Amino acid sequence: MAKQLDNQYRGMIVINALMRGGVVPEEVRKELSEKWMEVGYITCYDCLEGRSSLCKKPPIRTFLDGLAEYFGGYTSEHTFGCRGAQFAVMFLVRELVDRNGGHCDTIVIDPNCHYTTRITAEMCRLKTVEPENSGYPEFKLSAESFEEKILEVKKETGKLPGLVFVTHVDPYQGNVAPVKEVGEICEKHEVPYCVNGAYTCGVLPIDMSEVRCDFLTMSGHKSMASLGPVGFVVSNEKWHREIFTTPKSEKIARNKIPNIFGCSVGGLPVISSMLSFPHVKERVAGWDAELEKIRGFISAMEKLPTVKQIGEKPHRHHLLQFETPIFYETSKTQRKKGFFLAQGMVKRGIVGLHRGLTKKLKMSVYGLSEAEIRQVLDGFREMVALKEEG
Amino acid sequence: MAKQLDNQYRGMIVINALMRGGVVPEEVRKELSEKWMEVGYITCYDCLEGRSSLCKKPPIRTFLDGLAEYFGGYTSEHTFGCRGAQFAVMFLVRELVDRNGGHCDTIVIDPNCHYTTRITAEMCRLKTVEPENSGYPEFKLSAESFEEKILEVKKETGKLPGLVFVTHVDPYQGNVAPVKEVGEICEKHEVPYCVNGAYTCGVLPIDMSEVRCDFLTMSGHKSMASLGPVGFVVSNEKWHREIFTTPKSEKIARNKIPNIFGCSVGGLPVISSMLSFPHVKERVAGWDAELEKIRGFISAMEKLPTVKQIGEKPHRHHLLQFETPIFYETSKTQRKKGFFLAQGMVKRGIVGLHRGLTKKLKMSVYGLSEAEIRQVLDGFREMVALKEEG
Repeated sequence: MAKQLDNQYRGMIVINALMRGGVVPEEVRKELSEKWMEVGYITCYDCLEGRSSLCKKPPIRTFLDGLAEYFGGYTSEHTFGCRGAQFAVMFLVRELVDRNGGHCDTIVIDPNCHYTTRITAEMCRLKTVEPENSGYPEFKLSAESFEEKILEVKKETGKLPGLVFVTHVDPYQGNVAPVKEVGEICEKHEVPYCVNGAYTCGVLPIDMSEVRCDFLTMSGHKSMASLGPVGFVVSNEKWHREIFTTPKSEKIARNKIPNIFGCSVGGLPVISSMLSFPHVKERVAGWDAELEKIRGFISAMEKLPTVKQIGEKPHRHHLLQFETPIFYETSKTQRKKGFFLAQGMVKRGIVGLHRGLTKKLKMSVYGLSEAEIRQVLDGFREMVALKEEG
Repeated sequence: MAKQLDNQYRGMIVINALMRGGVVPEEVRKELSEKWMEVGYITCYDCLEGRSSLCKKPPIRTFLDGLAEYFGGYTSEHTFGCRGAQFAVMFLVRELVDRNGGHCDTIVIDPNCHYTTRITAEMCRLKTVEPENSGYPEFKLSAESFEEKILEVKKETGKLPGLVFVTHVDPYQGNVAPVKEVGEICEKHEVPYCVNGAYTCGVLPIDMSEVRCDFLTMSGHKSMASLGPVGFVVSNEKWHREIFTTPKSEKIARNKIPNIFGCSVGGLPVISSMLSFPHVKERVAGWDAELEKIRGFISAMEKLPTVKQIGEKPHRHHLLQFETPIFYETSKTQRKKGFFLAQGMVKRGIVGLHRGLTKKLKMSVYGLSEAEIRQVLDGFREMVALKEEG
């Protein structure tokens, strides 16, 4: 075994914005360690139908049905991370476009999307157009701008866009997009609509029927207290047969689904999602109180000199971006330059800031206790008070 | 936490043919449990370049370089299972074909391939042609039949096939394909060549430069003592820039690789591969002794009435298929019908037979101790001796 391999951050307070929703509860880790790690294919002992999502033992199918219901959808499949979920949707869109229906190979995506949205579009040979956000400092989206883009595409190509894709909460500022309003627009124009809940599903309430989206994609390791990589794609009733369609070749068993690589294997990450799901539902139900705590943290941070939260205000998500000119100024006086900040926080038992960055920082205190949040604040305060190094 | 979720097979002897190479060593499980399960994105604390395969801490890049070198290749990336590795290769082939070079969108694949090979070809809009195997009872492949197919495609389309794809050892009979001979043919005709080592890499020696393949794909959870899902694609020097190319869109960071979804996340499965790699190299070095043990097991099984090993003889891999008419006959007399066999073995502490099947069985004793193999044999003997149920 590779003895030199070590995780030096064990036991620290994690404030990485992409990690906080993926913290695996201790009792889940214990169960996983004791029962589910003997073989790589741990989900497959009783696979009778050739697809892990159909397994009754462990009850993956029941879990996926429950997950779809919880999010107001019809059915779901687990995928290779949220990128795999987005791929399943866009791969379907490509197929629909190739069948030469009323939609073209241009899709409308939000400008605040994760890079995987753009890369998946590229992989599926879909062109993208994007409305603009409101720019600095809020970077907000308007639902109307999506309607304008739909009409623009229609005018230019004679066809409707193949898809409208909106990131429910974006990974840069943590803004909540007007997903419901965009849903109404998509319904009016009859354009398939996907919401990416990678940063929200498992964190705050969202319901597909309310949002009126056809597809909802999500990430287990980002926001569902799961080991990576695992994601989920939920479909509404209208599209489930199309997105979870059978292979073309007669030589491939009918239970396999091309859009998710036949079978997404499952393994330990899916088991971790199953074990964490009750915990996830509980924390979603307590989101309002959590948001209060987060807003309190923002206020406290903004009391530090020059520190300013970027993105919509009042903030409605746990992913936070701060402008921190003070740390940039300090970095000039430090031997470690820009690295002083992340390293200084690590010394204080706090991990997750992007190493080297000081002008802005992205972080989260989601799910931390009041005492832990105080420790994080004290850490930042101490970094502000740092003196010039000799 | 979902209390009803349990793995009742914990501690049993696993004889599932796809699982034996993916048994995670106890000391690796211990390390993973203690140090690497706090968050889903466990590989990403020190990600500076936006792709997990570039991480220096944990040293994923060093590991991937070492892995490529070990398999006689130039560089490698981890992927979402071996299906993700195959996708990276075929996605490149599609791209090459679209660029309108000397190759067409038909690829030659072996008829003994895993379904993921066919489904990936479908996903990449590649047509497939297949030489025939020798049929029952050996199902062997000849290198010449691949040359014939190459020439056939050339004749029909005016162009060479986009790829030749051979499964090193197949998942049905466990036959070793003539990968080196096919490699020489591909070299002669200048056709890109991929070998799928999902059942061999991590089990028996294979070297890309010897086999003369351009790409080697492999599965962590199948044959590298890893938690799933994780796979690897190794490229030779000729192709590495093409297969691990940058995104087309300027809006996506240059470090992202579209063929592997930008970044394959990593997470616990990759860490498990890193921790298991020294163990894996050690067992590959001891393959000859292991094979002797396997052949001894085959002989013992064939002493049971009517039982016959299918596939090439002498056998050269741990994946075994047996014809077992005796168990089919017995099943007719049992209350549980075809399920008596797998369930009877589970009662004897042995898990991994496909539930319900009795006419044939697929299994492996790879890596089991002599005592465990005796227990497996005794189990089968007891099942043979079963009396008619009342």
